[in-house]
Parts: sequence; C-alpha cells; structure tokens
Amino acid sequence: MKFKATPAEQLEIVATGTADIVSREELLKKFEKSYETGKPLVIKLGADPSAPDIHLGHTVVLQKMRQFQALGHEVVFLIGDFTAIIGDPTGKKKTRPALTEDEVRANAETYRQQIGKILDIEKARVVFNSEWLSKMTFADVLKLSSQYTVARMLERDDFAKRFKNQVPISVVEFMYPLMQGYDSVALHADVELGGLDQTFNLLVGRELQRSYGQAPQVTLTMPILEGLDGQEKMSKSLGNYVGINEAAGQIYGKLLSIPDELMIKYYELLTDLSLADLKAIREQIASEPKAVKMRLARQITAQYHGAEAAAGAEAEFEKMFGKSGDGLPDNIEEVTVAAPAEGLPLMKILTVTGMAESGGEARRLLQQGGVKIDQVKETDGQKMFKPGADFIVQAGKRKFLKISVKPE
Amino acid sequence: MKFKATPAEQLEIVATGTADIVSREELLKKFEKSYETGKPLVIKLGADPSAPDIHLGHTVVLQKMRQFQALGHEVVFLIGDFTAIIGDPTGKKKTRPALTEDEVRANAETYRQQIGKILDIEKARVVFNSEWLSKMTFADVLKLSSQYTVARMLERDDFAKRFKNQVPISVVEFMYPLMQGYDSVALHADVELGGLDQTFNLLVGRELQRSYGQAPQVTLTMPILEGLDGQEKMSKSLGNYVGINEAAGQIYGKLLSIPDELMIKYYELLTDLSLADLKAIREQIASEPKAVKMRLARQITAQYHGAEAAAGAEAEFEKMFGKSGDGLPDNIEEVTVAAPAEGLPLMKILTVTGMAESGGEARRLLQQGGVKIDQVKETDGQKMFKPGADFIVQAGKRKFLKISVKPE
Repeated sequence: MKFKATPAEQLEIVATGTADIVSREELLKKFEKSYETGKPLVIKLGADPSAPDIHLGHTVVLQKMRQFQALGHEVVFLIGDFTAIIGDPTGKKKTRPALTEDEVRANAETYRQQIGKILDIEKARVVFNSEWLSKMTFADVLKLSSQYTVARMLERDDFAKRFKNQVPISVVEFMYPLMQGYDSVALHADVELGGLDQTFNLLVGRELQRSYGQAPQVTLTMPILEGLDGQEKMSKSLGNYVGINEAAGQIYGKLLSIPDELMIKYYELLTDLSLADLKAIREQIASEPKAVKMRLARQITAQYHGAEAAAGAEAEFEKMFGKSGDGLPDNIEEVTVAAPAEGLPLMKILTVTGMAESGGEARRLLQQGGVKIDQVKETDGQKMFKPGADFIVQAGKRKFLKISVKPE
Repeated sequence: MKFKATPAEQLEIVATGTADIVSREELLKKFEKSYETGKPLVIKLGADPSAPDIHLGHTVVLQKMRQFQALGHEVVFLIGDFTAIIGDPTGKKKTRPALTEDEVRANAETYRQQIGKILDIEKARVVFNSEWLSKMTFADVLKLSSQYTVARMLERDDFAKRFKNQVPISVVEFMYPLMQGYDSVALHADVELGGLDQTFNLLVGRELQRSYGQAPQVTLTMPILEGLDGQEKMSKSLGNYVGINEAAGQIYGKLLSIPDELMIKYYELLTDLSLADLKAIREQIASEPKAVKMRLARQITAQYHGAEAAAGAEAEFEKMFGKSGDGLPDNIEEVTVAAPAEGLPLMKILTVTGMAESGGEARRLLQQGGVKIDQVKETDGQKMFKPGADFIVQAGKRKFLKISVKPE
C-alpha cells in the first residue's frame, strides 16, 4: 500500500500524548521501512478476556491504536484467553475463575462491539493466544523460561515490592510476563501498546523477540488517565469514570465536571482531533476555558453517540444550567409517595424515592445545601409533606424528581 | 508378599549411616502399613543419564537401595532423560550437550550393568521421566509451577548464594527442582533417596506430592563420602576415588591407603555387612586397626570381584609389602625400549614407558625418591641405560615394569 503521511509525520502523530517510547529512533526506522516497502506495521494490543465494560480510561490506548490504523497500519487485538481458560492455577484468587471457551468468545464479541465505537473493527485483527500457547510442550516452555533471569523478573515493581515485604510470589507468576512476551513473538509484532503499568511486560516481549531471532518490537506506553476528580486513576470502583456505553447527556454532563487542568490531557488522550486542532485549543484555553471544556464534552460525546446527540445533550444542559433556562431539565420523572395524614418528613421522602441512597447521605445532602424544593434550597430534613402536596425535588446537581404525596 | 523383618527392624537397618530422614516417624508408619498390607514400598533414586562411570562415592545411595531391596521393597531408578534429550535450554553450559535418545538408552544400559554389581537389577525398575514430562502441556506446567514460591526456591543453597552474589539464575532453573519433584508424583514414590546435596530437591518432591493429593514421600539423605585422602568429597577429578570397574588389586590397594578414622564410615556406607557385624567391628577397631582395615579392603573388593579375587589381591599385596615378601608383585609387565648406542637417560625411560605422564612428573618422582631400579632408590634422572640392560623400575608405590633396552 501507499502511505499518505511521511515517516516523520507518522512519528509526530503517534508520539503525541505518550508516556514513553522505546525507542523513538527504532520507531522512525520502522515507519521508514514500512513507507518504502509499502508493508504496514503490526501493532499489538493485549486485551483481557474477562467481560469488558469499557470506560474512557481504557480508550486511551484504543485512541492510539486508532491513530495507527488511520495511518494505514495493521492493528491486532490479542485476547489473552489461554490463562482465562485454564483459570488461575494458584486457585487462590477468587476473582479469576476459569472461563469456558464459549464465555471467552462471548466476551470477545462484547469487546469487539465496544472497540468498534473507536476504530474500524472490520480492518482490525482479533486473535486468541490459546492458538499457540496451548500447543507448546514442556520443552518449549523450558526454552521460553530460559530467556529471562530471576533477578530481572524481580525488577518488576510489584514483584520487587512483594519480595521485599515477603509477600509470596508463586513461580507461575514469572510465567505470565513470558507468555505475554511470547505473544509478540508469535505475532511478529512491530509495536506493542500498553498503559504505563505494562512497561515491564512490554519490554519482556521486546527481549524475547530478540532471543527468538526477530527484530525487537517498539514499546509505546500511554499515561494513566485521571478520573473526573482529577486525582485518582479513572476506575469503576472509585466512581470517577465515564463509561462509553453511558447516555449522551450523562457523558456530556460528567465531562463538564472535570477540573480545568485536566482538559488538555483529556483532549490529547481521548479525542481524535488533529495536531493542528490541538494546537489551536492550547492557545484558546486561557481566554475561554468554558468554551474549551464544552467543546471537549461535545467532542467526546459525539465520538460515542454522534454529533446530533452531542448537540442535543449540550442544549439540554444549557437549558438546565445556562442563563436562558429555568434550571430544570425537560423531562422530569414523576413518582407518587404514600403518606399518613400527618405527612412524611423530607428525610424520609429522599430515601424512599431513592434520591438519597441512605439516611446518612440524605443528611449530608441537606447539610451541604444540596437539596432544593421547587428550586429553593431546603436544609430542614424534618419538614413535613402531607397528602395532596405536589413539588419538584432536586438532590445534587443533576437528580430531579416530581413528587405527588397521596394518602396511605 | 510377606516381609521377614518387622517394621522396627526395617527402620533400624535403613536408618544406619543416613545423614537425615524426613521423617523417621513417617517412615516407620509406611513400613507398618506395608507390613500389614504386604505391599512393598516404592523407593525412588534419580540418576543422571550422562555416561556414568561409577565410583564408591556413588555407591553410598546404591548400597542403601540394596538394603531396601533386600528387605522386600521395590526400587525404582529414575533416569532423568527428559532434560538430557532437550539439552540445556540456556545453551550456555558446554558440558551439557543434548543427547540423542539412543545415547540416553546406551548410557542407561551402562548404568544398569554397573548398578547390577550392587543390587538385583532384574527386580529393579528402570524408568525414564520423558515418559510423562514430554506429554505435559503448557497448562500442566503452569499448574506445576504454581505450587512453589520464588522465595522458597531461593532458599536452596546454591540459588541463595548466587542471588546474593548477583550471579544470574535463569527462570528455567526453577523448573528443574519442580520437574524432579513431579517425578515423585508420577511414580507415587514412598521414599526418595539422595545425597545430602539433594535435600532441597527431595523436599520439593515431598511437597508436590501433597499438592497433587498424594501422601508425601519420606526423604532419606546419605552423607557425602570423603575420598581416599580423607579430606575432600570422593571425585574423579580430584583423583581420590575408587572406581567399581577397577581391577581387584587396585581396589584393594587403594582402600588400604585410607586414614584409620574413615574406616567405620566406609564400613557403614560401602559394605553390606549386618548390623551385628558392624557392632563387632567397632569393638575390634581400637585393638586391631590393621586387621580391620584389611577386612574392609577385602570386603569391598569381594563385593565387586568375588571372594576369590579379593583373597588373591590380598595375598599379592602381602607378598609385596608384607614381611615375608620380596616387595615385588608376581606378575610384572615386560616392555622393550629402543636406545641408541650411548643409551637413554632414566628420565626418558620413565616417560616413554608411561611410568610418568610427563617430564615434570618424572622429575618430581625422582626428587621425592619415588623411583627404584631393581628395588634400589635412584634420584639421578640423567643416569644412562645402554642396549642390553635389563632391570625392574618401580615408580611410586604400585607401578612396576620389567624393562629390556634394545639397540635402535
């Protein structure tokens, strides 16, 4: 094939936003060779076969894959099904039960659908490492494990810490980086992508390729993405995430809540804007931070739901919180609450309707001034509402409910 | 089958001379169960498939195997051919080239012939671990390697030293003890024998059996045998050894040269005398050390060459070195040496006849008074012997040659 971008241009594009590349020189040479011969590079990304539910944190490497794909290279998703099928041989981690082959294939399909929102899945290769790993004999494994020393394994951060703190490391755990590295050998990978926390494993692949007589892959690591709080790594368990399957309004609203300092990083790592666009945004940010943030929210929402849905989400949000609106969303859900003749206290109404998860949360919301009745702040949780009352409750920034109190 | 010795008697017999048993209590229980059920215990000994040339140091564990066999148990020689066939995967040690299957079988046959001098080889089982190891998949290997931690591997003496001194340890080296241990699982071994230096590997087998749901084997380790010098471990490279294929006179003579302090240990570890005999010898040793040592030499010589050859060796030795003899053995080899008219110097004669390996050794022998011509000490290496001369040369204690000098 004929590449449109020159090797130097390709390097500039894929280097943007990366945490580290080992090495830039080698990557440039690979781009040059591929440019001359017309042969696309093989870009590897390892994927976990446990059921994926992708959030923006995961899309950082996927966006980078998308760039390689857009430049004309071959992207390969390596589903690490081999260990998933055999389960955790230590039998200690309850979180890693063995999956059946059907489960693995089903998960892979879900994964395909989700990454299909980011890149052209029809042009991507999805492969399973059980294809080669399950065929390896003990002799093959011995050869593989002879390529690395114990001391070098113990250089990996988590191993080093556990060894120092006398937390047991099973010998089998040394096999995992070797298996992951061998996948690069089997794929003849030119480049492997991963998060910064994958650096060690990616470098093992590089060295194993050398041991097996191949040109070593270039490793390209991406920074860890902070979540909406701007502090911790984005993760589902911390609640600071944006799932790519969330509704357009949800994605848009969540993104508007990020700290200003994060905006450029989110632009770089989560959007497919050109280098020229990114440059323009950097210049605009000091004078018009709000516009820049709205564009970010619109841009990312559009990537997952289309431009129309993104514009809709923005309009809805403007209506609620902008100067022109009444501060209320268009469609507020209506619920009926049954009360005795003397009425129900506000505290109780917040919890029975699910506006607050618990009495404690209701109390906190009230104390912090986060509760409004018909758009007026209300801090008294003991305020009574009798049958016949009709009002709109707002809890926090974006939870609204139209409540009708009926007799029991 | 019906065992003749009681469990307690069996324990006393096999415990004699051992360095360590893990554990005596378990071994007694195994003997008891086997005594009740009439089922022999499976006694495992691992053997190196590289061409063996057995010396007395190797026979220490073999003598112990012989005792188990004599008691009615099943002895199994495990030939570790699997790693021999695949070679050293690190490709670093030149001393461990890969062997072909034919070479391994041929070596095993040599080994059989040699150990056949010590025990009843027809009743012994000889097995090859490639039988099960070559069939193991990567998944099996992962399960195996999940049974042991890195920290515990690094407790093995040689690993601990190398790790401390930053001498590289390949990950594959962690697989070897696991393989050896798995052999015990495959064999359902009840007892594994080995030298003290094998303690770690034997204990791995014990634990792996437990992991794989079997009763753990008892490990029985034998002390390291000092060589003829009474200092270093017996080894071919140190020259302080007695090979079991050496001539009767050679074995007899070498054994007479050991320090007195070693006699009891040699009796315990190298002979098949009964506990009662050993007790009698212990009592006799202070008053008649020479008789005890001669009996030891005769006993061991007889084990490998029969009683008659042992008696012959003793008579020959007595004739040479005893009070009655002329100090010369019966049959001295005759050789002819060609010399020019002016004759050959003694130095030259010593080297061309092979009495000395090199000019340097000839010089040392002469200086130390180790050379006799017709039983008279001669220190002048330049002394000339002309054609027509006929004499007996003695070099060291036991090398004799009848030399006739002929014209060139």
